[in-house]
Amino acid sequence: MPLRPTSKKQFDLSAYLSTRSRAVDQAMNRFLPSASTRPATIHKAMRYSIFAGGKRMRPALCLAAAEACGGKIEPALPLACAVECIHTYSLIHDDLPAMDNDDFRRGKPTSHKVFGEGMAILAGDALLTQAFEIAALSKGWPRYNHQTITLEIAKAAGSLQLIAGQVADLEGEGKKVSAAQLKYIHERKTSALLCCSARLGGMSANCTAAQLKALTDFGYNVGLAFQVIDDILDITQTTEQLGKTAGKDTAAQKATYPSIVGLEKSRKIATDLTNRAFAALKIFKGKAVALEALAEYLLKRDK
Amino acid sequence: MPLRPTSKKQFDLSAYLSTRSRAVDQAMNRFLPSASTRPATIHKAMRYSIFAGGKRMRPALCLAAAEACGGKIEPALPLACAVECIHTYSLIHDDLPAMDNDDFRRGKPTSHKVFGEGMAILAGDALLTQAFEIAALSKGWPRYNHQTITLEIAKAAGSLQLIAGQVADLEGEGKKVSAAQLKYIHERKTSALLCCSARLGGMSANCTAAQLKALTDFGYNVGLAFQVIDDILDITQTTEQLGKTAGKDTAAQKATYPSIVGLEKSRKIATDLTNRAFAALKIFKGKAVALEALAEYLLKRDK
Repeated sequence: MPLRPTSKKQFDLSAYLSTRSRAVDQAMNRFLPSASTRPATIHKAMRYSIFAGGKRMRPALCLAAAEACGGKIEPALPLACAVECIHTYSLIHDDLPAMDNDDFRRGKPTSHKVFGEGMAILAGDALLTQAFEIAALSKGWPRYNHQTITLEIAKAAGSLQLIAGQVADLEGEGKKVSAAQLKYIHERKTSALLCCSARLGGMSANCTAAQLKALTDFGYNVGLAFQVIDDILDITQTTEQLGKTAGKDTAAQKATYPSIVGLEKSRKIATDLTNRAFAALKIFKGKAVALEALAEYLLKRDK
Repeated sequence: MPLRPTSKKQFDLSAYLSTRSRAVDQAMNRFLPSASTRPATIHKAMRYSIFAGGKRMRPALCLAAAEACGGKIEPALPLACAVECIHTYSLIHDDLPAMDNDDFRRGKPTSHKVFGEGMAILAGDALLTQAFEIAALSKGWPRYNHQTITLEIAKAAGSLQLIAGQVADLEGEGKKVSAAQLKYIHERKTSALLCCSARLGGMSANCTAAQLKALTDFGYNVGLAFQVIDDILDITQTTEQLGKTAGKDTAAQKATYPSIVGLEKSRKIATDLTNRAFAALKIFKGKAVALEALAEYLLKRDK
């Protein structure tokens, strides 16, 4: 098992996540058009997926990164909400019949099951667009202006990162995929946005270049660990436990870490990645306790 | 017929559009990842739709607006390419089976017919994301920084404008739509992005508030005229003449200007709107000759 470098037994991650989630939800409620704003259907659809009970892991990483750099959560909130909009849009589109064809997400019917395919496509488009608007409503910082912030999000979400991961995932179905190819997919499909979340948090605290580098290493490794764990949970947990269809990677003949290197080695890889993430946090000298707790939680989670 | 206020008989719009299109194509080629960049399929799909022979009307409006304000085209090019990416993404998604279900666009098979539905959805997503990246690569101007530019695009493309128009259009199919509702759809589906194109061009020339107001009025009226003409052409031209499926509004029981107010009144509305667009250009004292010629061309076009 990995050793958390800062052994702060008193840190209550559950309370931390709860207060941060509430702050994110309140900010999101302010940033999104109300459900009655014309045309109401699209705003209902956007809100349905945003408030469908997501774990808010990316916003939490963003806010915890800001705090590790001595920043406050208030200026980081637009960036935290922006990454959550990107994440949610990608789930809505991934769940479509033309992609993963999934009927459930977070224990609820997916967007296209509730609003129809056309509206689900538009709700995803709207959330992607809204992400850039919300991020642009941030105040901007001496080291990181709005140009830097927009480029950071566009690159992480673009055709070389998030979308590249989805494309490679789609094209890899039913084919023999090597461990290297699988790492390529995971780096883009999951790690890119988690890494971006941590980096944006640092930027909102006007962090130094060294701090940004540390957050990048942390986010990259936590992101990969997160996806390895996702692969493991997909075969070890039930649909009820996950709140989304279990075993769908196997059903779709998708390459996963367990299918390539086995379950035991997969667990070791996730632990090693988490240890690397912990190591990256040394620079924060004990101030990154929330980031450490988050990394540990993501490793040990059961859904 | 409308009277173009600046009677510059020597202005050669065809030559103007040809040189501006070439500049836009060259810039777009630089901004987009090459077709061999991994994963190649998504970049091939993005380039397929971007280089499918579009008229480049929005980029032309953007560049002509910059020139009307005394600016050069070079600094306006990232913004011109950004609006074209937004326009192209919206066409790819509109053409999907879950939306308008169209097999042809600009005389070529639509993205999902060539690359499949999943990849077409992702290509649209990628172009929308790329639009914000390209716009952020612009240099920024004293009166209009990157925050302003990003917000301008996000608002025009978002759930209150471009996407709102598409939603209302989708929801209006087969229903009785009033002239007021139709105007609401056209303002958002077409006018918003044309207006944004002209405004961004002005911003790239660091235009005054009065010039920006004039470009807004111009873009709004030209945008509405453009869509009224589109409705007229849909029923008066053939599929071969248009390069896209003719008569599809009627087939989809979509409300159009001709279906609500008749063909003759529709033509008068388009002419009146174009005259209003001309009137907005007075402030430029004869320097907006390219914008005038564009507005006249859009009114008189036959495809």
